Amino acid sequence: MSFSMQTIQQQFKVEYNYAVFFTQHLFDPANTLLKDFFNQYTEQGFQKKALVIVDEGFANFHPSLSSDIRTYFSQSVPQIQLASETIIVPGGEACKNDPVLFESLVNAVDVHGIDRHSFIIAIGGGAVLDLVGYAAAVSHRGIKLIRVPTTVLAQNDSGVGVKNSINFKGKKNFLGTFAPPVAVFNDLTFLRTLDDRDWRGGLAEAIKVALIKDTAFFEWIESHVDALAGRDEEAMAYLIHRCAEMHTDHIAGGDPFEFGSSRPLDFGHWAAHKLEYLTDFQVRHGEAVAIGIALDCVYAAKIGKLPEADLTRILDVLTKLGFDLYHPKLAENDKINLRNGLQEFREHLGGRLTIMLLEKIGKGVEVHELDADIIAQSVDYLEGSKLIHA
Amino acid sequence: MSFSMQTIQQQFKVEYNYAVFFTQHLFDPANTLLKDFFNQYTEQGFQKKALVIVDEGFANFHPSLSSDIRTYFSQSVPQIQLASETIIVPGGEACKNDPVLFESLVNAVDVHGIDRHSFIIAIGGGAVLDLVGYAAAVSHRGIKLIRVPTTVLAQNDSGVGVKNSINFKGKKNFLGTFAPPVAVFNDLTFLRTLDDRDWRGGLAEAIKVALIKDTAFFEWIESHVDALAGRDEEAMAYLIHRCAEMHTDHIAGGDPFEFGSSRPLDFGHWAAHKLEYLTDFQVRHGEAVAIGIALDCVYAAKIGKLPEADLTRILDVLTKLGFDLYHPKLAENDKINLRNGLQEFREHLGGRLTIMLLEKIGKGVEVHELDADIIAQSVDYLEGSKLIHA
Repeated sequence: MSFSMQTIQQQFKVEYNYAVFFTQHLFDPANTLLKDFFNQYTEQGFQKKALVIVDEGFANFHPSLSSDIRTYFSQSVPQIQLASETIIVPGGEACKNDPVLFESLVNAVDVHGIDRHSFIIAIGGGAVLDLVGYAAAVSHRGIKLIRVPTTVLAQNDSGVGVKNSINFKGKKNFLGTFAPPVAVFNDLTFLRTLDDRDWRGGLAEAIKVALIKDTAFFEWIESHVDALAGRDEEAMAYLIHRCAEMHTDHIAGGDPFEFGSSRPLDFGHWAAHKLEYLTDFQVRHGEAVAIGIALDCVYAAKIGKLPEADLTRILDVLTKLGFDLYHPKLAENDKINLRNGLQEFREHLGGRLTIMLLEKIGKGVEVHELDADIIAQSVDYLEGSKLIHA
Repeated sequence: MSFSMQTIQQQFKVEYNYAVFFTQHLFDPANTLLKDFFNQYTEQGFQKKALVIVDEGFANFHPSLSSDIRTYFSQSVPQIQLASETIIVPGGEACKNDPVLFESLVNAVDVHGIDRHSFIIAIGGGAVLDLVGYAAAVSHRGIKLIRVPTTVLAQNDSGVGVKNSINFKGKKNFLGTFAPPVAVFNDLTFLRTLDDRDWRGGLAEAIKVALIKDTAFFEWIESHVDALAGRDEEAMAYLIHRCAEMHTDHIAGGDPFEFGSSRPLDFGHWAAHKLEYLTDFQVRHGEAVAIGIALDCVYAAKIGKLPEADLTRILDVLTKLGFDLYHPKLAENDKINLRNGLQEFREHLGGRLTIMLLEKIGKGVEVHELDADIIAQSVDYLEGSKLIHA
């Protein structure tokens, strides 16, 4: 007996839209940006709520934040009912390691009756945005997420993108989804309370995209290196905008949910991830990316891909911005850890290693193998270079 | 000081494609369907693996399944490396309640090195497909999922759709994502080991879609009611195909990831969900949907929306297929539980209640209010109706 039933070919497209706004004093009643957003984000007939979740580090520097937000909403956005509590979560990578924290956020969604047509407003650095974004994405199969990134790194890179994640048994970003926000609000004034390391750290992602895609942007960074190192806000505003623009363009123009293999934005990241892990995240993400960029640039110069003059300019910019280009953990255990890092990165990508190297400033090129001995020589070079710069 | 940085408007579309195949004896080496799928699903340069996860209930009826699959892959799909173990998970709704089970699946993904370019093959009923689908969707932000549904309900409805979920602290489907599979294989022969209740239960979703969308399909069901009740495979093959086709059309033609509010396919489901919960899932999903359909049709007739003649035909088909149209839990606590059920459904939808009722066979209509007294009268009607049919 055999019945032949025709194959059903399912096919559809899902469209995503969101704005990345740039502003100052977001919750000042005189600033109508958030009010205007909610007024035009109309969906009739729903009783909308919002749950605000704030990074503890940021909340500590802004003790009036929660009451400022409540005042703003009661005056300017009365159609949205804020949950009775503002949730504070510890910031930094540690928050992504704790399954109890994730569960407490899902529980808050339940307790406060936040449904698919309500909002979660996440205010914080990249790690908190990752954690909250994941909880929002999987609760009720997706609650509308508004991101308010409070670090340079989150404003110019992760916070304007489409990913979220938590760690699983120490494996970074093992659990997560692709889930675009409904809006991102980048407030320049929120960066004032950053310490110098986090101010600087966010520059690394801008240097990354400039190096692989935009010579003019790298030259702009070169010519504003003192302003950026000196915490000039106008320079930072431009850098964040340009970097966020390139990041969102990359997502929209390519493979937004990474069904394929190519991940060129991960330039400088394979060693960075490993270094963060080896230092128990004492080296912060941007700092690690700066070292990762330096390492891969030295490597590219050593194999003759990148001109020496370009290498010098790159290391010079990184150094002038105050980045360390070397960490002792890079050389530990005869560089065996770095080799493991490469292997983990290969697995994360799906069996085939794809690493972005530079062939000149502004132009990246993908390779599928790295030579372990030349990596080791590149580490040695950076160790020596550090002595010169120190 | 004020810098005006232009808003970035991000916009992109993500395209999804997957086939729903209909076959018999999927893992028989003579059947090349799965082999052909993997051969054309080419992605060069990746080392691909697959992890097979099977519903315990199904595995018990098919003791050679795991070895059959291994033989099939070694002979026909040598390019895919199967994980060393086949994972067995307990079936039924209970599997979605256990966070440890979810964690064990994520752990298996880690242990067996299943990456974003590898596959998870989920074989089982709707609950197992929901659980495994969720674990696959969030591990590494999404592993390619192949679904092999083994119940009527999963083959014609949930298994061909785009959702997955687990429960959270007793809240049904509280955690989940929208994540289309890369393929679905519906094997008719896998239905032979179903008990009569599950064979019958799957018919409820077909009746549901026929009633709201397709008069001709309902008439086909009416005229094949004896064949379907008598486990005729040819009739079942047609019913599943037509139902799956309507379900996939509904997804593709509407709002696949349900960003909006309308959920017309939930006809008959508000009371069904509550009844499942009230009976601790002793009343199975399809059985509960049959009662839910009956209840909403009686309600529609009572308010003059649905002609009496249509109501009679609907209840007649349900009864002849062997469905109970009443359960004592419907009337418990003076119907107060049903009212709560309505409230929960309202919250799940996002504050605005939208219920599909019938105005005639083949045509649904949305309403936004139900009258509690008329619900109670409808329950009484079904209780009386049951005595007549018994």
